[in-house]
Amino acid sequence: MKLITFEMDGEMAAGFVDGTNAVVCVTGADAQRAVLSVIEGGEAALAAWQDAELTRAPLADVRLLSPIPAPLRDIFCVGKNYYAHAAEFHNSGFDSSAKEQVPSHPVVFTKATTSVCGPGDVVRGSLDPTASVDYEGELGVVIGKRCFGVSKADAYDHVFGYVIVNDVTSRELQKQHNQWVIGKGIDTFCPMGPWIATSDEVGDVTALELVTEINGEERQRVTVSDLIFDIPTLIETMSRTMTLLPGDIIATGTPVGVGIGFTPPKYLRSGDQMKVSITRLGVLENEIG
Amino acid sequence: MKLITFEMDGEMAAGFVDGTNAVVCVTGADAQRAVLSVIEGGEAALAAWQDAELTRAPLADVRLLSPIPAPLRDIFCVGKNYYAHAAEFHNSGFDSSAKEQVPSHPVVFTKATTSVCGPGDVVRGSLDPTASVDYEGELGVVIGKRCFGVSKADAYDHVFGYVIVNDVTSRELQKQHNQWVIGKGIDTFCPMGPWIATSDEVGDVTALELVTEINGEERQRVTVSDLIFDIPTLIETMSRTMTLLPGDIIATGTPVGVGIGFTPPKYLRSGDQMKVSITRLGVLENEIG
Repeated sequence: MKLITFEMDGEMAAGFVDGTNAVVCVTGADAQRAVLSVIEGGEAALAAWQDAELTRAPLADVRLLSPIPAPLRDIFCVGKNYYAHAAEFHNSGFDSSAKEQVPSHPVVFTKATTSVCGPGDVVRGSLDPTASVDYEGELGVVIGKRCFGVSKADAYDHVFGYVIVNDVTSRELQKQHNQWVIGKGIDTFCPMGPWIATSDEVGDVTALELVTEINGEERQRVTVSDLIFDIPTLIETMSRTMTLLPGDIIATGTPVGVGIGFTPPKYLRSGDQMKVSITRLGVLENEIG
Repeated sequence: MKLITFEMDGEMAAGFVDGTNAVVCVTGADAQRAVLSVIEGGEAALAAWQDAELTRAPLADVRLLSPIPAPLRDIFCVGKNYYAHAAEFHNSGFDSSAKEQVPSHPVVFTKATTSVCGPGDVVRGSLDPTASVDYEGELGVVIGKRCFGVSKADAYDHVFGYVIVNDVTSRELQKQHNQWVIGKGIDTFCPMGPWIATSDEVGDVTALELVTEINGEERQRVTVSDLIFDIPTLIETMSRTMTLLPGDIIATGTPVGVGIGFTPPKYLRSGDQMKVSITRLGVLENEIG
C-alpha cells in the first residue's frame, strides 16, 4: 500500500493510493495523525483501511501533503553514508565536524519536526541568511514497531515502509554551528513524500534507485545497495542504546552530486526546481522560494 | 508556580507544588500531557489550575516524574556554552566535532524524547557499551509560545519557565559518531525535574546558581550569567530559521567540572549518585544503574 495524507475540498484527509485514485479513509481532525495511527496499528489497521467501503477521489483533484505531516519527534538522519558523497563533502571544506573522510560509525543527527513539508510545497530558501541552500535526495525508512536491541538479522521486521526525503541544508549554518540541528532544521527544509510505501510494496529495498534533478538536470543517481552503513546496520546501531518508535523516520543519507560538490558550489536560488525520484516511491518535487 | 507530573496511588497525575503538598489538577490518561497543555494554554490555563477546588497530597506520598514525561519532540541542547567547560572538553580529546575551543556560534544538538526520565529514576549506565558515562548538570529553558524570528529584546516574553536537566552522555559514543544524537540519546540519559518553575517564580534567571555533586562531592558550580551564549541569544539564533513550539525545552549547556575534565576521566559507575541543584528549581537526583 501507498499511504498518503492530503487536502481535499479544503479539508485534511488520509488514505492510500489505488491506481489514479486517492482512497479516503479518514477526514477531519483525525487525518493529521491517521497515517501514524495506522503504522502503530500494524497489519490489522492496514487491513481495516483496505477492506472498508470507502470514497475515492482522483489523485489529480487532491493536494498531497507529507504522509506524516506532524511527526511524533524529530527526523533521524544519517550523514556521509555513501562513499563518493563522503569524499565530496569532506573535500568541500563544509564538514567542520569530523576529521576523517569516511566515517567509522554512522553519523546520526536530527531535523526538527517543524522543518517537514509536503510534495509541491515551496521550500523557503530565503530563510537561510547565508544563501547557501543545498539539496540532498534520500531514502527514508519508516519504523513500524517500538523496538530496542534489534539485531541486523531482525532489522527488516521492524520496518513499516519507505518514503522519499529531501534533506535540504544551509551549508554555511551547518558549518558554523558544528552540530547540524540549526543548518538542517530550517522551516520547510524537510520535504517528504509523496507517499509511504509499505515494505511488501517495495520488495528488495537495496535495488531501489534514487535520482535527483535540479531544473531538469540530473545531479544524483545511486542504488540503495551502495550505502556505507546499510539499513540493518543503522537499525542495529541506533536501537542498541535508543528505543525506536513506530512512525520514526530515518533518512539514510545522500549520494554524491550535491551542490557543494561543484567548484564553485551550485547553491539553490529562488525559482529552482528540485525533483527526487526513487523506484516505487514516486517523485518528490519542490520549488525554492 | 512549580508544575509537576507524578504518580499517586499507582495512577499518573499532574498539578503543582504548594508548600509541602502536591496539588492534584489532572489524573488519569490526560495527566501525561497535562503540563504541556497548560504551557500551550498560557496564563488562562495556569489561572484555571490555581483557582480550582483541588485535592492535595503530601509531596512525600507521591513519586515525582519528569514534569513533561513525553516531550512533543526531541530536547534541544547547547554544547560548549561556558568558557571553562569549552576548554576542558576541547582539551579532553573527546570533541571530535570542532576545531576551535570556544564556539563562534551556538552548538545545537538534540536528545531523543525516549531518553527522558524523572527525579529518582535509575539512569541505565549499563546501556553504554563503552562504559564512558558522564554527567552534565544544566539549566533547561521551557518555551511558552509558538514563535519565529524572536529578537533578543523580546526573548524572555517567549519563555514559560525553567527546569533542571542532566545531559547524561556516553563520551566514547559522542566521539565515535561525530554528531551527538547517539552518544546523548540513550534511554534514561535525560533526567529532568523535579518541577518546571514559571518565569515569575524564578525572577532573574541569570542569578541562578547550578551545583552538581557526584556521591556528595561537588564537581560543578556556576552562575547562569556565565553562559557564553545567553538565553536571549539562544532564542534569537534558533528562532531565526526554526519555529519554536510551546513546551520545547532548550538545555543551555553545562559548566566546567564534568568527568572527562579529570585525568584520567572520572566516568560514572553503577551505584553512583548524581545530584544537580539550581536555585529555585529544586534538586534532581539520579542513581547510575
